[in-house]
Amino acid sequence: MNIGFIGLGLMGTPMCKNLLKAGHTVTVWNRTLAKSEALRSDGAIVAVSPKAVAQNAEVTITMVTDSPDVEEVILGNDGVLGSVKPASVVIDMSTISPFTTQKLAASLQERDVELLDAPVSGGVWGAESGSLSIMVGGSKEVFDQCQGIFKDLGKRITYCGASGMGQVTKLVNQIIVAGTLAAVSEGLTFAAKAGADLDAVLEAVSGGAASSWQLENLGPRIISGDFEPGFRVRLQQKDLRIIMDSANNMNLPLITTPLVQQMFRVLERTNRGEEGTQAYVKVIEELGGVEARRSLDQGTE
Amino acid sequence: MNIGFIGLGLMGTPMCKNLLKAGHTVTVWNRTLAKSEALRSDGAIVAVSPKAVAQNAEVTITMVTDSPDVEEVILGNDGVLGSVKPASVVIDMSTISPFTTQKLAASLQERDVELLDAPVSGGVWGAESGSLSIMVGGSKEVFDQCQGIFKDLGKRITYCGASGMGQVTKLVNQIIVAGTLAAVSEGLTFAAKAGADLDAVLEAVSGGAASSWQLENLGPRIISGDFEPGFRVRLQQKDLRIIMDSANNMNLPLITTPLVQQMFRVLERTNRGEEGTQAYVKVIEELGGVEARRSLDQGTE
Repeated sequence: MNIGFIGLGLMGTPMCKNLLKAGHTVTVWNRTLAKSEALRSDGAIVAVSPKAVAQNAEVTITMVTDSPDVEEVILGNDGVLGSVKPASVVIDMSTISPFTTQKLAASLQERDVELLDAPVSGGVWGAESGSLSIMVGGSKEVFDQCQGIFKDLGKRITYCGASGMGQVTKLVNQIIVAGTLAAVSEGLTFAAKAGADLDAVLEAVSGGAASSWQLENLGPRIISGDFEPGFRVRLQQKDLRIIMDSANNMNLPLITTPLVQQMFRVLERTNRGEEGTQAYVKVIEELGGVEARRSLDQGTE
Repeated sequence: MNIGFIGLGLMGTPMCKNLLKAGHTVTVWNRTLAKSEALRSDGAIVAVSPKAVAQNAEVTITMVTDSPDVEEVILGNDGVLGSVKPASVVIDMSTISPFTTQKLAASLQERDVELLDAPVSGGVWGAESGSLSIMVGGSKEVFDQCQGIFKDLGKRITYCGASGMGQVTKLVNQIIVAGTLAAVSEGLTFAAKAGADLDAVLEAVSGGAASSWQLENLGPRIISGDFEPGFRVRLQQKDLRIIMDSANNMNLPLITTPLVQQMFRVLERTNRGEEGTQAYVKVIEELGGVEARRSLDQGTE
């Protein structure tokens, strides 16, 4: 298929490679040209603008950071809207506001172009291995037509409903991810303050009602002091901001989520935006004057 | 072995039956006599007081609700301390304050009696099937001696360190359980407010970074409107109170946990103390004027 791909960041680049590997013709654009050029050897065609990407594409994929970025590459000067073919499809795989998605879908529909919102989870590793979870909103018929592309990129592919519902589902994912991590962080800091053996605590509370992906994957990193990013503080903070903007739009009060967002804001303010989200524990630790680390005399596994 | 067992509630009764099945001689006491009498047919010997339970026991187990209850059955008139044999062991399997545990351990040590704190998780089902998780604090040597009893009652048995560390570990478990549930509740309410298909949302966010025991077990109950107790609001609220008391004792500030506790307090105040903890979602739903239930036209599986 003739695919346009806009946004070659940590996620976009490996996703694009998987589309090339699957045999698609892929035309790419990225704000920083060097990242486009790097894909030439994989077979990508390099375009000079989002508009140039879209002009021959049956499907144009956008994978950028935030709502304004998607608006810019679709509605801006030299944007997709300036050349996109009637009856083609735009798939936005960025995580952005569902309200922005609905606005963009309306603009594209005026040109007889359908927009699917299809944000992903699974991180860079999921993008590289083609095992992303993909949450899709928009026309069910168009979703069915695009199944092949989704299967080239991910494993758990869920149709979530009308336009914006893919984004809503991704935001739900991020509410739960962030809140679960906050609970894990407070639990481990409590254990450390009480002088507990953190390995024993992790062992005891894993596998039961307290178990979670966050606990089992990030708990061991926290107690060994590993704050390398799986998912960055800066991006989690961005997603929580979109969540709170959306909740405000819906007049929905939330209780713990905004507090978790503020704690992530503390992390960003103190220059930890590029660390992994497990650095959340550092805010709680600093409040309590204690570190939730394995004692050196308990070995390092 | 000659075992004394104090406290025959929803947890204590099946635990006691498992000890009887394993061939131990078990002498029981409960505040409400009828619950002791009910165990006669299983082979239990009924005693008239905690003191009478302890006088011939090699191991005395207490399984009551709260810190003052344990203090009463051990230190009170007709309490265990009045008759307990030197070199015997007391195992407190209630979930109480680690500070109370350490105080009781000191009192018992004056009589040459060791106290293990051994709170459990796994609920009534775990108690019945002998598959509880047991988190043990106290002397390692005494822990090793009591392994046989623990194995009659549970599966995941973890030695957590000195006296009180079993309780600390259980409280960590409860911090994480409650905070994870709060995150799941806010996520599902957000989804409902946005008009999402809740089955699709659950399907999409399970199995990835948002996955947890709470999401996978209580999420489906929430969206089908099932608030039957696995673990009761009243007991979760009690555990959170002990957590906050302990955090205060340690001068440890926590951020989201006390807020979650206040939400559970709202549930208790509004007469939902006997519902399952998943009723947490109702507070968030009522704030937002929406219910996170599967639409009737989406079927009921």
